[in-house]
Amino acid sequence: MRTALLQSSGRPGSVVENLKVLDEAAGRAAAAGAGLLVTPELFLTGYAIGDGLARLAEPADGEAADAVAETAARHGLAVAYGYPERVSDGTGTVFNSVQLVAADGTRLANYRKTHLYGGFERAHFTPGGRQVVQAELGGLTVGLMICYDVEFPENVRAHALAGTDLLLVPTAQPHPFQFVAESLVPVRAFENQMYVAYVNRVGQEGEFEFVGLSTLAGPDGTARARAGRAEELLLADVEPGLLAASREANPYLADRRPGLYGTPD
Amino acid sequence: MRTALLQSSGRPGSVVENLKVLDEAAGRAAAAGAGLLVTPELFLTGYAIGDGLARLAEPADGEAADAVAETAARHGLAVAYGYPERVSDGTGTVFNSVQLVAADGTRLANYRKTHLYGGFERAHFTPGGRQVVQAELGGLTVGLMICYDVEFPENVRAHALAGTDLLLVPTAQPHPFQFVAESLVPVRAFENQMYVAYVNRVGQEGEFEFVGLSTLAGPDGTARARAGRAEELLLADVEPGLLAASREANPYLADRRPGLYGTPD
Repeated sequence: MRTALLQSSGRPGSVVENLKVLDEAAGRAAAAGAGLLVTPELFLTGYAIGDGLARLAEPADGEAADAVAETAARHGLAVAYGYPERVSDGTGTVFNSVQLVAADGTRLANYRKTHLYGGFERAHFTPGGRQVVQAELGGLTVGLMICYDVEFPENVRAHALAGTDLLLVPTAQPHPFQFVAESLVPVRAFENQMYVAYVNRVGQEGEFEFVGLSTLAGPDGTARARAGRAEELLLADVEPGLLAASREANPYLADRRPGLYGTPD
Repeated sequence: MRTALLQSSGRPGSVVENLKVLDEAAGRAAAAGAGLLVTPELFLTGYAIGDGLARLAEPADGEAADAVAETAARHGLAVAYGYPERVSDGTGTVFNSVQLVAADGTRLANYRKTHLYGGFERAHFTPGGRQVVQAELGGLTVGLMICYDVEFPENVRAHALAGTDLLLVPTAQPHPFQFVAESLVPVRAFENQMYVAYVNRVGQEGEFEFVGLSTLAGPDGTARARAGRAEELLLADVEPGLLAASREANPYLADRRPGLYGTPD
């Protein structure tokens, strides 16, 4: 399945403009043969927009979700997008979420970031309560995660044990943490024998300087494709044949010894 | 604490010669101010020596262990060395082990490789049954692990949760797995906020072409020192100040959410 990584910060503060950017990118991705388009974290609203996050937050089945579903259906490809999610229970709870919409516009899965990073995120979001969220797409088991989540080996291992083939990780990774895109993400893919699509924002936004470097890492530990630091629609293929061959050559899951784990002394 | 990584394959098949190589290296390391010398996996006997492994295996308190203790005491530095360990119970059980000896010759800790790699190791060794083995040394909590063990994030995480500051990893890493030394080991150090000393063999030995690249990785994810592919005594410092600063900047252990783990659904 050809996968398109939309490395862009869109237009922070404007959902309308970001929906346009997303629709335009979906058209280009579909024309290039992609079956899936993935955005960065909080793409729909922008990241460093302070109280704008709560103001622009919508339910997982809100108006913006409907617009994304229309985009997916119009261009005939699945879309995973980051957005602030308001829960419709009157409590004002806002999650930092990613939703996966199928090529026919059906909402397949919604994940709420479980590991919030730093004071900014903790001030604006409630952490999610479910570690592993997956969906089937194009013959692959696709998992969802957001930014800081992927830096915890426990989270990606849980996905591997649950059968994830392709992990989608919208992110908002600022300077000076290039190490995460350059080294940690390929290692996660290798040690868990899966693909990891790590999709970042770019440029200055408030106090953050986002570094791009979006990467599709393969189960062999290589970056199958890696962006630079500018806006880019990065295209790369997820190949079931490489997954199978790499898993046979690197049988980490079979060689685990769960009977020894969980009892450090 | 200055740490010396002895990147060498010694003289496969001769414990006597390897004890000489070790003693000579200990002298050089001590003269350079090192408080600890670490060898590769199975340094005392050689790795690709087939049935020689069982023939040359000794108990943790055997003659070779006494010789290493003498070397440590003579030069006044701790030594962690890899060797095949025979259990003194008449069963013929042989483990792939690493033993840490203090600068006064006291045996501090002995670890038996829990994750054996491939057919060769499974044919010659019994896997160990204890995941986390540690000792206090020079004000640091030092952990022991061997080669393939470090590729499992669970193992290193268990050490981090148990307080390991410096993880010693004798290894026998062949081509084409340079990725482990170059990328995976620094990521392990970063995600767990510890130092990792990864000490490899070099050159052709039987069917294996060992790639060197021994690395002392720091908690900031950098290689504080990295060897090439030839024999080398690599020296680098483990700095408690860097540990403290890096742990404050990257609070992975505090930001874990153990209540979510272990229940993938």
